Amino acid sequence: MVNTLGKSNNGSAFGRSIPRVEARAKVTGKAEYVHNLRLPGMLYGKVFRSTVAHARIRGVDVSAARELPGVHAVYTAADIMKLVPDPHYGPAFHDQPVLAIDKVRHVGEPVALVLAADPHVAEAAAQMISADYEELPAVFDEVEAMTSKAVVHEVLKPAGTFPDLKHLKGKRDTNIALDFHLRRGDAQKAFAEADHVFEHSFRTQQVLHVPLEPFVTVADPTPNQLVIHTASQSPSFVRIEIARLLGWPESRVRVKVPYLGGGFGAKLYIKLEALVAIAALLAGRPVKISLTMEEQFYQITKHAATLRIKSGVSKDGKILARECEVWWNGGAYADIGPRVTQKSGFTAPGPYDIEHVAIDSYALYTNLPAAGALRGFGIPQLVWAYESHTDMIAKALNIDPLAIRRKNILREGRPQATGTLMRDAGIEQVLERLAQRMQWEKTFDRGSGSVRRGRGIAIGFKASISPTTSVAIVNVSADGSVMVNCSTVDMGQGSDTAMAQIVAEALGIPVGSVTLVHPDTDVTPYDMATLGSRSTYHMGHAVKLAAEDARDKLVALAREVGLSAETVPIPDIFRRKYGMQAGNIVGVGSFIPAYAPPDAQGQTDNATPFWMIGATGAEVEVDTETGEFKVTRLVNLVDVGRPVNPAIVETQISGATMMQLGFTLTERMDFDAGQVTNASLADYRIPGIRDVPAVMENEAVDMVQKSGPFGAKGVGESGTFGVSPAIASAIDDAVGVRLTSLPLTAEAVYRGVRANAGRPLED
Amino acid sequence: MVNTLGKSNNGSAFGRSIPRVEARAKVTGKAEYVHNLRLPGMLYGKVFRSTVAHARIRGVDVSAARELPGVHAVYTAADIMKLVPDPHYGPAFHDQPVLAIDKVRHVGEPVALVLAADPHVAEAAAQMISADYEELPAVFDEVEAMTSKAVVHEVLKPAGTFPDLKHLKGKRDTNIALDFHLRRGDAQKAFAEADHVFEHSFRTQQVLHVPLEPFVTVADPTPNQLVIHTASQSPSFVRIEIARLLGWPESRVRVKVPYLGGGFGAKLYIKLEALVAIAALLAGRPVKISLTMEEQFYQITKHAATLRIKSGVSKDGKILARECEVWWNGGAYADIGPRVTQKSGFTAPGPYDIEHVAIDSYALYTNLPAAGALRGFGIPQLVWAYESHTDMIAKALNIDPLAIRRKNILREGRPQATGTLMRDAGIEQVLERLAQRMQWEKTFDRGSGSVRRGRGIAIGFKASISPTTSVAIVNVSADGSVMVNCSTVDMGQGSDTAMAQIVAEALGIPVGSVTLVHPDTDVTPYDMATLGSRSTYHMGHAVKLAAEDARDKLVALAREVGLSAETVPIPDIFRRKYGMQAGNIVGVGSFIPAYAPPDAQGQTDNATPFWMIGATGAEVEVDTETGEFKVTRLVNLVDVGRPVNPAIVETQISGATMMQLGFTLTERMDFDAGQVTNASLADYRIPGIRDVPAVMENEAVDMVQKSGPFGAKGVGESGTFGVSPAIASAIDDAVGVRLTSLPLTAEAVYRGVRANAGRPLED
Repeated sequence: MVNTLGKSNNGSAFGRSIPRVEARAKVTGKAEYVHNLRLPGMLYGKVFRSTVAHARIRGVDVSAARELPGVHAVYTAADIMKLVPDPHYGPAFHDQPVLAIDKVRHVGEPVALVLAADPHVAEAAAQMISADYEELPAVFDEVEAMTSKAVVHEVLKPAGTFPDLKHLKGKRDTNIALDFHLRRGDAQKAFAEADHVFEHSFRTQQVLHVPLEPFVTVADPTPNQLVIHTASQSPSFVRIEIARLLGWPESRVRVKVPYLGGGFGAKLYIKLEALVAIAALLAGRPVKISLTMEEQFYQITKHAATLRIKSGVSKDGKILARECEVWWNGGAYADIGPRVTQKSGFTAPGPYDIEHVAIDSYALYTNLPAAGALRGFGIPQLVWAYESHTDMIAKALNIDPLAIRRKNILREGRPQATGTLMRDAGIEQVLERLAQRMQWEKTFDRGSGSVRRGRGIAIGFKASISPTTSVAIVNVSADGSVMVNCSTVDMGQGSDTAMAQIVAEALGIPVGSVTLVHPDTDVTPYDMATLGSRSTYHMGHAVKLAAEDARDKLVALAREVGLSAETVPIPDIFRRKYGMQAGNIVGVGSFIPAYAPPDAQGQTDNATPFWMIGATGAEVEVDTETGEFKVTRLVNLVDVGRPVNPAIVETQISGATMMQLGFTLTERMDFDAGQVTNASLADYRIPGIRDVPAVMENEAVDMVQKSGPFGAKGVGESGTFGVSPAIASAIDDAVGVRLTSLPLTAEAVYRGVRANAGRPLED
Repeated sequence: MVNTLGKSNNGSAFGRSIPRVEARAKVTGKAEYVHNLRLPGMLYGKVFRSTVAHARIRGVDVSAARELPGVHAVYTAADIMKLVPDPHYGPAFHDQPVLAIDKVRHVGEPVALVLAADPHVAEAAAQMISADYEELPAVFDEVEAMTSKAVVHEVLKPAGTFPDLKHLKGKRDTNIALDFHLRRGDAQKAFAEADHVFEHSFRTQQVLHVPLEPFVTVADPTPNQLVIHTASQSPSFVRIEIARLLGWPESRVRVKVPYLGGGFGAKLYIKLEALVAIAALLAGRPVKISLTMEEQFYQITKHAATLRIKSGVSKDGKILARECEVWWNGGAYADIGPRVTQKSGFTAPGPYDIEHVAIDSYALYTNLPAAGALRGFGIPQLVWAYESHTDMIAKALNIDPLAIRRKNILREGRPQATGTLMRDAGIEQVLERLAQRMQWEKTFDRGSGSVRRGRGIAIGFKASISPTTSVAIVNVSADGSVMVNCSTVDMGQGSDTAMAQIVAEALGIPVGSVTLVHPDTDVTPYDMATLGSRSTYHMGHAVKLAAEDARDKLVALAREVGLSAETVPIPDIFRRKYGMQAGNIVGVGSFIPAYAPPDAQGQTDNATPFWMIGATGAEVEVDTETGEFKVTRLVNLVDVGRPVNPAIVETQISGATMMQLGFTLTERMDFDAGQVTNASLADYRIPGIRDVPAVMENEAVDMVQKSGPFGAKGVGESGTFGVSPAIASAIDDAVGVRLTSLPLTAEAVYRGVRANAGRPLED
């Protein structure tokens, strides 16, 4: 196959369900993961963690651990501070110490680190460490945290990474890490004038991401650079943050990420990389830390949230005004929580065309493990609340759930709560397609006797993170094959394949001619991170721009040597120029979308480069004698713009749906005084293959994101949006029980059935 | 340190003797070499080699080896051909089989390969292999090869890589792999008219490069790519050649080169990489081959040569005409020998202004191990001959050696033998500076009794390889630190440091802000190879162009956001654009010098992008009773343009000088029917620290290569040029013995002394 620019792929690179480029590596067990990495002289690190939720540290006794044969070193914060005087890190706030300094703020907080060549020795030594604590009052509930005297951090320390958080610097004696407010119109006045006002509260639980690959990092202190191999979704950020901590130039830190065994936000920004990096520098040897499953429950969790929604509605079901209050339980360290609060905040009223809106969203510090990003970045929690609320209004007004949505949804060109006009947002199309697939307007078999059936629909939307930057290099070899250097992490979502398809489409060459280089900050340029369904759009643009730059340079080269790049094979152009198979054409692409920051009222005319839309229809069967229910059908529809690779898009939708199904039905971290009481996969149950609903339909609705690369947009999260409320509404439809707290359990349903029947169970 | 474009290095990046960037890695033993690499499941390969010089293979019995416990596989050519039907490789000719097919053409030729997880098992198994040969007449001498009936290759198979060799394709029954001819003026007519005609013949021996790191390659067949870690000077070429053999796109082959423990041409183009790569693919596991020192004598050697020079000279010493005939003993496979023949050919008359020139240069196949490139690429051999010849003429005409050179040297602006005008070639300056340092025109103590003293001078020049291409990427991070991606191999010559200095100079930032990425064909763009002292000039240009491209983009970015890149620190420009520490500016540089190919007469007006000039003055002390002599003083002067790093330039001059001292005094591969009889460092003696002359002075003459990056040019070979003839002339000056064959031995001197005294020794 000899590639000619624009001629060699029959236009079939984009939009085809080609196999993933990494399929062979994965099924043969040869794909590289950080877990597989062993370096000469490498030490294993084991973390000694706090057993109390909030306490002053009187002392840490590491003497026995240090004396255990085989132990190379034991470090506490004092050791860390020899190298890094102020060892606090974090993306939104520099609030998290590498190892606890003076205080611990949650159970599981790293207090000391043992290094040994044998991981079992490190483990045994860690168990010989003891700490003496003076316990302090703790706060665990996010709403209580608003006013609690138990203050987790004395002073707020925003990181400066995100300029919109800077104003919080230096605030004292508050657990509010961020408060986001949006005002549009006059909600209070509208409530006063409305026919009906409804107000409901909802709660979501703290959950875990559970990527199949637990978090793992290896740091290698080579003479010229500190090389960090890490299972991270954000190699560029890790490099910048480690360089900042060490006071080094970025170029002295090299971050490499091979494949990831799932991310889902659990591996975003920076987790234990700082501890591993500093330990490796102190030890002068490579250091590896891999978390156990139990440790992950204390390191990487997701916000619980309390949500209150109040709507003023006309008697025919038009929503006139909405007030949302959201309290996010951020745990002891901010991680990216303040951004979740802010970025999900402005879509809290849902995909509805509401004239008067008031939103107050709070990121709260509590004495729980730090909460960070998780697939959906707060949106599934919001959709859970506002779509349950929508159906509760509909039921109260005796309006059909589809009809109330048709009346209120945000249509193309209308302003969203921020004032940003909706563009290329298929809310209407997705809703109508859902109605079709659900045969919503046909008769539905509601069951009989003790087996009752019900159905529900829900629709949600999400803005993309903005503004963020992606840079890529497309390198054309003299034989016409192509290397793509980009820092997008393939964590199972298929980004390698998608980027190869976009580059192949842009150059008009076969996908097989394109090879991806995995993230390595020395050679793959900056990318903000692999998060928020941003890669297809942002990095997709960057690789497309890079490919176009390469194409332009190739056309210019051909012209220079008297050939036409449109008809002459690429190798012939190089050969004419260089006299042999030689040279490279290197194209560069850099992309940052336009963006307008919100004003003090939260208003902006450009809140996001694109909108993600997802809707779910659910059918359930409920046993009224036990409360047991099963989801018999789940229909998931997503506006993905033009799908880069339909088969991969389908797995993104189904994967997102199943993940949200777990959060809807079974997953919840249970706490006792800040201690997780179900920190194992035996007790914390994620969905298995038998939990897949008998009928599950996933569809990418036919749309085009005009501003996207070849019409594409992000798709990794949209499948999560509608799952929880659709199922809750289906249960209510079946047995008249409205659950307002996740997860939805048989017990709660049974209690509802009994209460409806006037026979409530005692607690 | 916050970098501002053009402001942050006080103009001190270029031309300063900063420590090498890799110094710390090397002195702490942490620098990476391929030898250190062990991969999971890796097999060690051991080569079974021919014991005869020329034979048809009747059969190879590998059965016992295959049955040895622990042996994974034994491959012969038949196995190789299952994967690669025509497994012939080579840079100039595709003439070298991966394993011998039907015939062996030199002792030591690889015939079979054993793979085992334990290298000792592989070694033991290789010794259990036997081959049945039908011996053929062999030819070993290069001049005999011109007419011998023993033909090494039936048909010539040029590779196509170098277009100027293509015309040889299909030639039969000749050992002449290339004949180069140049005609300028009418040498025969000039000889007839000259006052004197002198003709002398010279010979140089076959030698070994002896890098401290023997040749080693690991090939790793990953699912998507074949990854080759190799101690190679030419990663780009290895990638292209392996991809060609396999019929794969370049992008499926990834070649990585860490540090090299010396190269000197021994690791150029492709050596055993093809065998290792194909074996790894056949075995489905990583394979490593590292050569023993003994094996290197059969794998990587340098041409012996016979040189005849004839000059027509006026009675006052003006050289009017010169005829050169050179026969290069290329061994059994062409490797890059034809290019040595051709590229050194046109400078064979030396740095002299001669009106009438005739050159005939021949690359010959013989049944010796293949000869390839070695520091100087044929020039030290030529200088040895033409400078000995110069002094023999001077002596015959009773002209001072300095005077005859002053009369004849090529001065700036004069045409060289090809017709190309000399530009920025400091022949005159180097010669005059040598005369000064040698105090040539002062009295010289000639010794007395049995201890006689003499002195000699010699000057040589070399063209750079042309036209060749270098491409580089300069990547500026948001904090103003910089990564340089280039495929130049740092093999001890200090290229990492030089490139960092050039980039820092171009951007006006400190060298410490610049980090080099080692060759990795996925991410470092094409470079022809690290050879021929081309890197400082060619890659120096490429990285400078890339830095300038980055600078221009940074200036444009600053302008876009309303700042001035000349006054505002780099991080502030990024932050204004991206709102946070984000993004990269990626500059690309691609360089190929102008070049005009020679016509049928060898004439061109642009033979080379720059000239290298080197001169040596030697003083010796000879014991007339034994012939023993020692070099008491060696003065080496080189035109290096503007030195990038004077301290490194000095080590290049002294290193080249010492290497040539070994070839001058002690090194010679001895053969018996094609078998090397001194294939060990006990018998083949390279210079040690005690061989350094008591007085050794090295100087970079103050010059500027106007076309070079910041005035620099290549320097790695120039120190070799004058060493051999300067010492030979010094011996002649001391005791009147003119040696015409290298190495110069005490025995030869003693024989000369005896012959001069009328008492010749019997042979």
